[in-house]
Amino acid sequence: MSGRTARRRVLRITLPGADRPGGTSARADLLAGEEPLGIRVDGTALTMTMRTPGDDLELAAGFLVSEAVIASPADLAGIKLCDGTACGHADHDGLGNIADVTLAEGVTVAPGARRNFMTTSACGVCGKASIADICVLPHATLAGDTTRFTPEVLAGLPDRLREVQRVFSSTGGLHAAGLFTAEGDLIAIREDVGRHNAVDKVVGWALLDGRLPLSGCVLLVSGRASFELVQKAVLAGIPLLAAVSAPSSLAVELAEEAGLTLVGFLRGPSMNVYTGAHRLVS
Amino acid sequence: MSGRTARRRVLRITLPGADRPGGTSARADLLAGEEPLGIRVDGTALTMTMRTPGDDLELAAGFLVSEAVIASPADLAGIKLCDGTACGHADHDGLGNIADVTLAEGVTVAPGARRNFMTTSACGVCGKASIADICVLPHATLAGDTTRFTPEVLAGLPDRLREVQRVFSSTGGLHAAGLFTAEGDLIAIREDVGRHNAVDKVVGWALLDGRLPLSGCVLLVSGRASFELVQKAVLAGIPLLAAVSAPSSLAVELAEEAGLTLVGFLRGPSMNVYTGAHRLVS
Repeated sequence: MSGRTARRRVLRITLPGADRPGGTSARADLLAGEEPLGIRVDGTALTMTMRTPGDDLELAAGFLVSEAVIASPADLAGIKLCDGTACGHADHDGLGNIADVTLAEGVTVAPGARRNFMTTSACGVCGKASIADICVLPHATLAGDTTRFTPEVLAGLPDRLREVQRVFSSTGGLHAAGLFTAEGDLIAIREDVGRHNAVDKVVGWALLDGRLPLSGCVLLVSGRASFELVQKAVLAGIPLLAAVSAPSSLAVELAEEAGLTLVGFLRGPSMNVYTGAHRLVS
Repeated sequence: MSGRTARRRVLRITLPGADRPGGTSARADLLAGEEPLGIRVDGTALTMTMRTPGDDLELAAGFLVSEAVIASPADLAGIKLCDGTACGHADHDGLGNIADVTLAEGVTVAPGARRNFMTTSACGVCGKASIADICVLPHATLAGDTTRFTPEVLAGLPDRLREVQRVFSSTGGLHAAGLFTAEGDLIAIREDVGRHNAVDKVVGWALLDGRLPLSGCVLLVSGRASFELVQKAVLAGIPLLAAVSAPSSLAVELAEEAGLTLVGFLRGPSMNVYTGAHRLVS
């Protein structure tokens, strides 16, 4: 039980219709893998997330960027995977993988963030004690990013994402996050059962590769744009977040506040620009 | 900022094509509302969730069913909404709505569950300390539910859900959960930016209406079937969970263990039966 996908026998039922006889057949189906990953920071369990196995260190690093704990590779003294059995920690008890993170001297997790909380496959900002703690943005603003993007380039990104995604998986159960240049060149793509995990994996990859902040880039997500995805984009320094589907009300509010360009319903030749339209040139 | 939907001005860009001139126009767009709801139990903050406002008490009640804290209306001594300003609790600080729950005497939140954690719009099992705590199922099993369902009835449910959903909202940003009889009659539908919230609202409604366990019912969700949705269905006593999209590997494993019939890719005349196929008759 540790793959990106899992093979499983299913019963496929098709009802008869005018153009088909209908029938029932047993066949193999490929499922998106979903398993817990514990993230431990300086020896203490920080969070757990339900994720699709793979790119686990990137996921952990990206999660810490999204929580405003780290912002550069120098903030990490070490990061490694362990299975929770042989490291003497009782908090994560050997039933899954653990990303073991050691922060650099002077880097700390804010008291409000250090909790025994858990995130699930679509949950990115768990563990906050009060409503005021929801937003972890340290008054970040993207106003200084003067990159311009063209609707023509943006309109081509979903097809590009789907092309690459097809290579990755055929489960129909994975969210994708793709990082592109303003010219539409793919920089990185990651997939996960959770859309926030897919974004964390991209951001964590960028951090570990010394690429943060991601000025001038576009982040495209395959689903909807929620509050937490906007937050993650802003903390990674990404000036434009595009979603194939709808944004939520809070996503739009936060994007406006942080100076992020938020594009939704990016489908075919059309798109809705919710905030930061000044970055769009035609 | 307290509605199920929010109206917002957007810039709609359409690229020119062979059959259209293209253009840019400002227009109003309806967004799915997303706001935090705090859930306080016996005076202490238990969790926070990013949800679409509406049916908040049902959401809180359903969340507690899904956490195996309550199972009948008698387990609740009281449940009410407050705005967090006038009730003397510092834990939820007046920035959003709070569902204030008082448990009946003898009903308690398990020590492992009582944490300052937060769930987001797609997160249903937050707040667990260790990987072993993820599954809150108290060895529940649905094996005793001998209801049979026909593929014909199941195949008709997604259209039925979409019909009713259209009345609810036109944001394109909401997940729906619908509860049906084995004959395909709609019992209840709820919507939310988070699929687990939509399910919690349905289950909470059923609890408050004295209808738990939901033996003999079908729960249909508009998106994918994750581990936590399976858990919620099982704890509500629902024998069949159907999803329009794919299940995850862990969802299938848990469904099998708990004796739940799990149907995925319920689209048009076809469906995949992952577990509990004995409940399907044609």
